[in-house]
Amino acid sequence: MTGITQNNAKRMVLIAGRSHPELAQAVADNLGVELVPTRAYNFANGEIFVRFEESIRGCDVFVLQTHTAPVNEWIMEHLLMVDALKRASAKRITVVAPFYGYARQDKKHAGREPISARLMADLFATAGADRLMSVDLHTAQIQGFFDGPVDHLFALPILAAHVGRSVDRDKITVVSPDAGRVRVAERWTDILGAPLAIMHKRRDPDVPNEAKVLEVVGDVKDRICVVVDDMIDTGGTIVKASEALFENGASDVIVTATHGIFSSPAAQRLQDSGIREVVVTDTLPIPVENQFPNLTILPIAPLLARAIKEVFDEGSVASLFDHVGV
Amino acid sequence: MTGITQNNAKRMVLIAGRSHPELAQAVADNLGVELVPTRAYNFANGEIFVRFEESIRGCDVFVLQTHTAPVNEWIMEHLLMVDALKRASAKRITVVAPFYGYARQDKKHAGREPISARLMADLFATAGADRLMSVDLHTAQIQGFFDGPVDHLFALPILAAHVGRSVDRDKITVVSPDAGRVRVAERWTDILGAPLAIMHKRRDPDVPNEAKVLEVVGDVKDRICVVVDDMIDTGGTIVKASEALFENGASDVIVTATHGIFSSPAAQRLQDSGIREVVVTDTLPIPVENQFPNLTILPIAPLLARAIKEVFDEGSVASLFDHVGV
Amino acid sequence: MTGITQNNAKRMVLIAGRSHPELAQAVADNLGVELVPTRAYNFANGEIFVRFEESIRGCDVFVLQTHTAPVNEWIMEHLLMVDALKRASAKRITVVAPFYGYARQDKKHAGREPISARLMADLFATAGADRLMSVDLHTAQIQGFFDGPVDHLFALPILAAHVGRSVDRDKITVVSPDAGRVRVAERWTDILGAPLAIMHKRRDPDVPNEAKVLEVVGDVKDRICVVVDDMIDTGGTIVKASEALFENGASDVIVTATHGIFSSPAAQRLQDSGIREVVVTDTLPIPVENQFPNLTILPIAPLLARAIKEVFDEGSVASLFDHVGV
Amino acid sequence: MTGITQNNAKRMVLIAGRSHPELAQAVADNLGVELVPTRAYNFANGEIFVRFEESIRGCDVFVLQTHTAPVNEWIMEHLLMVDALKRASAKRITVVAPFYGYARQDKKHAGREPISARLMADLFATAGADRLMSVDLHTAQIQGFFDGPVDHLFALPILAAHVGRSVDRDKITVVSPDAGRVRVAERWTDILGAPLAIMHKRRDPDVPNEAKVLEVVGDVKDRICVVVDDMIDTGGTIVKASEALFENGASDVIVTATHGIFSSPAAQRLQDSGIREVVVTDTLPIPVENQFPNLTILPIAPLLARAIKEVFDEGSVASLFDHVGV
Amino acid sequence: MTGITQNNAKRMVLIAGRSHPELAQAVADNLGVELVPTRAYNFANGEIFVRFEESIRGCDVFVLQTHTAPVNEWIMEHLLMVDALKRASAKRITVVAPFYGYARQDKKHAGREPISARLMADLFATAGADRLMSVDLHTAQIQGFFDGPVDHLFALPILAAHVGRSVDRDKITVVSPDAGRVRVAERWTDILGAPLAIMHKRRDPDVPNEAKVLEVVGDVKDRICVVVDDMIDTGGTIVKASEALFENGASDVIVTATHGIFSSPAAQRLQDSGIREVVVTDTLPIPVENQFPNLTILPIAPLLARAIKEVFDEGSVASLFDHVGV
Amino acid sequence: MTGITQNNAKRMVLIAGRSHPELAQAVADNLGVELVPTRAYNFANGEIFVRFEESIRGCDVFVLQTHTAPVNEWIMEHLLMVDALKRASAKRITVVAPFYGYARQDKKHAGREPISARLMADLFATAGADRLMSVDLHTAQIQGFFDGPVDHLFALPILAAHVGRSVDRDKITVVSPDAGRVRVAERWTDILGAPLAIMHKRRDPDVPNEAKVLEVVGDVKDRICVVVDDMIDTGGTIVKASEALFENGASDVIVTATHGIFSSPAAQRLQDSGIREVVVTDTLPIPVENQFPNLTILPIAPLLARAIKEVFDEGSVASLFDHVGV
Repeated sequence: MTGITQNNAKRMVLIAGRSHPELAQAVADNLGVELVPTRAYNFANGEIFVRFEESIRGCDVFVLQTHTAPVNEWIMEHLLMVDALKRASAKRITVVAPFYGYARQDKKHAGREPISARLMADLFATAGADRLMSVDLHTAQIQGFFDGPVDHLFALPILAAHVGRSVDRDKITVVSPDAGRVRVAERWTDILGAPLAIMHKRRDPDVPNEAKVLEVVGDVKDRICVVVDDMIDTGGTIVKASEALFENGASDVIVTATHGIFSSPAAQRLQDSGIREVVVTDTLPIPVENQFPNLTILPIAPLLARAIKEVFDEGSVASLFDHVGV
Repeated sequence: MTGITQNNAKRMVLIAGRSHPELAQAVADNLGVELVPTRAYNFANGEIFVRFEESIRGCDVFVLQTHTAPVNEWIMEHLLMVDALKRASAKRITVVAPFYGYARQDKKHAGREPISARLMADLFATAGADRLMSVDLHTAQIQGFFDGPVDHLFALPILAAHVGRSVDRDKITVVSPDAGRVRVAERWTDILGAPLAIMHKRRDPDVPNEAKVLEVVGDVKDRICVVVDDMIDTGGTIVKASEALFENGASDVIVTATHGIFSSPAAQRLQDSGIREVVVTDTLPIPVENQFPNLTILPIAPLLARAIKEVFDEGSVASLFDHVGV
Repeated sequence: MTGITQNNAKRMVLIAGRSHPELAQAVADNLGVELVPTRAYNFANGEIFVRFEESIRGCDVFVLQTHTAPVNEWIMEHLLMVDALKRASAKRITVVAPFYGYARQDKKHAGREPISARLMADLFATAGADRLMSVDLHTAQIQGFFDGPVDHLFALPILAAHVGRSVDRDKITVVSPDAGRVRVAERWTDILGAPLAIMHKRRDPDVPNEAKVLEVVGDVKDRICVVVDDMIDTGGTIVKASEALFENGASDVIVTATHGIFSSPAAQRLQDSGIREVVVTDTLPIPVENQFPNLTILPIAPLLARAIKEVFDEGSVASLFDHVGV
Repeated sequence: MTGITQNNAKRMVLIAGRSHPELAQAVADNLGVELVPTRAYNFANGEIFVRFEESIRGCDVFVLQTHTAPVNEWIMEHLLMVDALKRASAKRITVVAPFYGYARQDKKHAGREPISARLMADLFATAGADRLMSVDLHTAQIQGFFDGPVDHLFALPILAAHVGRSVDRDKITVVSPDAGRVRVAERWTDILGAPLAIMHKRRDPDVPNEAKVLEVVGDVKDRICVVVDDMIDTGGTIVKASEALFENGASDVIVTATHGIFSSPAAQRLQDSGIREVVVTDTLPIPVENQFPNLTILPIAPLLARAIKEVFDEGSVASLFDHVGV
Repeated sequence: MTGITQNNAKRMVLIAGRSHPELAQAVADNLGVELVPTRAYNFANGEIFVRFEESIRGCDVFVLQTHTAPVNEWIMEHLLMVDALKRASAKRITVVAPFYGYARQDKKHAGREPISARLMADLFATAGADRLMSVDLHTAQIQGFFDGPVDHLFALPILAAHVGRSVDRDKITVVSPDAGRVRVAERWTDILGAPLAIMHKRRDPDVPNEAKVLEVVGDVKDRICVVVDDMIDTGGTIVKASEALFENGASDVIVTATHGIFSSPAAQRLQDSGIREVVVTDTLPIPVENQFPNLTILPIAPLLARAIKEVFDEGSVASLFDHVGV
Repeated sequence: MTGITQNNAKRMVLIAGRSHPELAQAVADNLGVELVPTRAYNFANGEIFVRFEESIRGCDVFVLQTHTAPVNEWIMEHLLMVDALKRASAKRITVVAPFYGYARQDKKHAGREPISARLMADLFATAGADRLMSVDLHTAQIQGFFDGPVDHLFALPILAAHVGRSVDRDKITVVSPDAGRVRVAERWTDILGAPLAIMHKRRDPDVPNEAKVLEVVGDVKDRICVVVDDMIDTGGTIVKASEALFENGASDVIVTATHGIFSSPAAQRLQDSGIREVVVTDTLPIPVENQFPNLTILPIAPLLARAIKEVFDEGSVASLFDHVGV
């Protein structure tokens, strides 16, 4: 036989965009690797330039960027990095987006709207992504928007362990802040062995037109309400829910969410709300000015690093969640 | 300039598979057209053969097949019809699936599962579908599984009008039979001006392992409970829900769903359940043996025909639902 | 250089659908492996669910399903398995369909028909198949329907060895049962050193309209006729051919085919036909009620296993057929 | 409503490459149009340049090129024309290849070969072809190589009408020159009401190794043998067949084929062969030096023009062949 | 024949993103249409939402967005609008980007860079764009990055007419500011009948390492130098060129460019530079604070409107530039 | 775990078409491998047949063909080889085209032209190419025509080293023969530390219509002019440039180009031109009759072999050009 035959090693590298350098470094530390040295900057008119300073030919590349504000900026940088990797002969490209942008626009609410979450999946595929990894997608169906493997990680074990340690479980009622979160709230009730309540926006029968009142469905009197959401943006929904819970006799309110967006005025609102504790992970950077006394931030890097390692080693990502019944 | 220039007319045709001939005829009648004469039969080993007996070159084709049992048979026939249309130079092919098969497998519940609802969308696209039309998809995100226009129709106005006419609205409580249906239930509360309750499967704290108890979250005492679901398959969930509602003091239970699958033993169960009325549409054929005294079947053909007409006329499908605020 | 470098092993696994468990087990035994534990069942409305109970991340997967009746059921299961494998990060997916469904619809016989064999190839590609393996495709052109590697295996050596052992070669005439099989019949004449005859359906000059008579072209008097086909479905063609051969003086008739579909009433017909022996392989399951005294079933599993091994080892599948001049 | 609404006319144009200008002009004449003025020439190093001298924006374009020698030259010109049409905003592009190049390589005869006929279909699709039109493809399966509509035209009615007029039908035996042409020969027997014979290459039992003898299967004594093929290339097969037919007592031999390639030394061979008449169409240009006394060339342009008109008018191409039972 | 046949009108609509409302209105005015009413805003975390307030089903849509700063924001809005149009059944979508973002990254300058201009073309195709229209792409090859029709418009006639009117043509020397613009400069010399000079960055032989000096190649003494560029970003290159031209004896310097990006401190620099006049079009918005005394802004809307009209009418865009020999 | 796990070696092979056997052998020698034995020939009508005589299953294949005249012939052979490799289960296919055909048609010069260089990239992708490798593409943007990795090699170090050795650097002026080559000429000025001049085609002000005069922009008096081009086709441009340079006082002219096409009458013209030396590489075969006394041919095989080795070893191709600052 003609040709040259030789051994076939494989190499994993971690690359990060500029959106959340602390998280990138933490994942690298957890993996025991250095980040690939990368140049990335904006030209005067805002166009982004990226270049990797080291050959990544033949590598199993994990390219990390969380889609924090300015979200379009960081998504575009993410896409450009994927294109550069594809053209530089990366063997496999896994897009790691701890917070996946545009996840909330996962369907048309009315005619002539985009389905932006599907579009993002297609844009990454077009740029050259082979695989996606993300944490707590807004709806699980987003996995189906990508035509390839998606590693969908759950922060639930991390968040629930924290809450379970700090509160008397017998007093907890899990609360879904709206109709779309009930499924996730049910998982919490399973883990904490707690009852369920939900917040329901109802058309006010006493006021004409579009006025709505926020009802608590289920019993929350004298209960420690754990409101579980996937993300906290301006905090408006959460604060209104907590007010309604207190009005219905809740003894205390704790809020947990995977993604702490904290768009203004979330920090002020949550601080002033009477909520005992707000618990999030650091899938998104939380600048000091958005941190407030009753905020707890749990690190997501260990989970991301373990998942990346399983993917590279061709182990099982599903196995990471076996013990929590997710 | 060279060539031949002439006027450009457009022609719409309606084609149907073999899964639900009554519905196909009803849609044709509502449109005022004949169905395209079509041969379709199975070879001895089960392979399906189809041929259209009339030229459909250049047509705007609507090809109707509902994905009733045997579901794989009818989906395959649907795909083969689309392939034949593509190769016969149809100008545009709209797949009309009043009930869209595999909609419930719209995400991975655990590792190493398919996302079958996405796969179906891809199979139809591969065969040559340009557009999809369906009624009450299991989750709205399924629209995003298809890379093109999806006309998503809602039976809610039809079902709610019927329920609103036959019951005293002041006594109604809308009930979501599980966590995944709460969003739709909220739309019902808006239309009927009624409060909400939900059924919640909770791990039984008194029994170890996986035993679950069905809780009613919200107040249903002395209320006429309208349980709203998208489909009724074996009826198990619905009947258990109704038992729990009666146990919690409900005065009556009415069940509505768009799709009446009624897999055995649904008909017997529902007949014996004490449920006052079960209301569905005929998106799926309901054989005589599955019809029972307290079952009401509302026709879906008028809605499908109006939507097809809007698409062909380049009007607005969204406008069909303006008056109900969907 | 950054990152982690490690050795790169490769793992082959065999997965099977539910259509032909005996064949799947036989292939596994020939390979010396266990089948990947797999859950597959139908929901009440006929939708199929599949899940693999073991991680197949990074594997070279061979997913076996023969397209026996109910053929649409098993093809859909096959597609769903491929989708699940793709989403579970299989490295390479080879679809193994010993009998490839819809192979007979490999062209349009008239306007407005599908080309179903091409559609099947496209559906598998869409689901995620990288490669196909099959035995004796109805026409060799079907290889070209798939945009990727096709391992086309031939049962001819197995069948011809059996016939050559049991009959006096000098007395054999190879008979093509219709115009489409003459090419394959020629290969048999090469291997057996025998002359050729063909069956020809001719418009009856004495009867108006579409009546046809079956003529024998070539000399079969006092010959042992070996009728060679790729599949036997209802057996009608074969039995009529054998009658015509006897009428033309054949001393005996032996029938061979790769695929024994045996749709009713094939078994009864063949048993009553005066044919000395019917020889097939077990690419399709042949239930006991379809087995008859003069039927011989040869095992195909050794050939499939050898081919799978060559593919995994990056050897040569072509080499398996070198010695028979195919 | 915003915007501008206006009437929508459609325009058909005919464009031709340089391979067969007489045929292009004849088709244009039959359609009653002028060819779109086109510049096409080769640069010094052989690269081809094309430009259309008239706007074809929004047109229904039929781009005609027959794949005669030098075949790669003309296929490439055909592809470049399609690319130029796509980029110039043609509305629909139908590739008209009366003789479709590489049709004979429609399957792998051995390992590590291309399937060139499929590749050509893919190349045209990539360049921008929406549809294909061709005459008597080498095998009907080639239709399935293109993922879109294929108008497959048959010269059989033209050829058979000519033969039927000039010979006593009662004396005709239709002869397939090899195993791959038997299906087409059967269609001839239907139309002419004639019996069938086939040529069979058989391994010579008296000579070791690869020597083959050409056998006549069927009875040709005192018959006028009409040998039917799809193309005549060097004429070797045909001339050997005719010798064998005369040796077996044929009274006369007529040869028909759709495509007259006539690679050297076909013209000389056929002239010297004792064949009474060779009948072909002008799907390929036949230079004067390849024309010989017993050659009849029938015009294909009327058929092409009728088919193009049907496609543009959204009529039925299938209807063109209804009366001949193809 | 079954079905409904009716006349087929066509409707053109103009839609605009938020990046340059004045230009959008000017194009609409030139076309004599209203813009389609559109909602577009950013959510708190920066994600963009768009919805069209009027049905665009079946329309020939021109969707205008110029890629000014913040460029990633406006490109993403552009992509989302295209996705929404595709899902709303637009018949044809033409992306109109008067300034096409990332055009300067049209090749890899070193290893491991993206080719961002190609990526943008692919992203628009993925979102659903059928066609592109732009003005003076940075290099003409960018047309080839899109797999479909590109209408490439030239501002040269507009700019050259202005310059030709205001300066004595006999005194003009056309100057290319760098090596990449020489081709365009040659077109100017043709139109103005003027000689050429170019600016050349040369490694300084007297200084080690990377220091470069700017040389004028060609004769500019006592000439009115018209420096022609496609865009002016920070103005650094242009101002250095003008200094070098004055040093080499130029009597005056005029600068023209299609796209006035004017990133800070361009306005100040150009005002202070001694350049007589800077002439640009309004393909990009130029806020008041970036306008300076010697700046002339020519309107591009008439050209865009004429091109859109030609496309909708299936006329010829090329014809718009016939008289200037482009 | 089920299945078979084994070590994963990798094998590189080199395959060549028939266009330039000397170069193929030289690359093989530089790599220390044999070429894969390959059959390739033309059928009588010009269709090409290829088959590889050795299994290449699982290989990292480099398939070399330079696109010399007859260019369409060799491109088609190249495409057919890629298709055969894909269907034979090659693991990765790198198309090596030292001279890439149709590179000059990289944009539309006027309406209704193809962008042939993009089409070629798409054709190779369709056939199955994963990667491209070429030397000195006509414009760097062609890299962006391929949706995958392109290894773009530069002959500049080889050519410049030769020129630098044979001429006094202080006397050199680098000359760009037209507007499109100025960028490359600038790289030469960097390496040689020489000034720049360019040739400019200008409309003759004294002659009406289209007459053009060739101007030298920059100072060439008493300089040794090194005219740098990417290819020499008929030599017309180069010879006219050299005449103009001599007229402007150049003391000597040396011409270098990567690709020596030398279409007739290039050899005679260049020999008669007074040019001191013409330096090219052997990316294209240069038959003896095109070789002339003042022609120097430098070998390109060492560069191609080094690049192939880097790709196979997953090293860095960029690193090959680090020392020359390209």
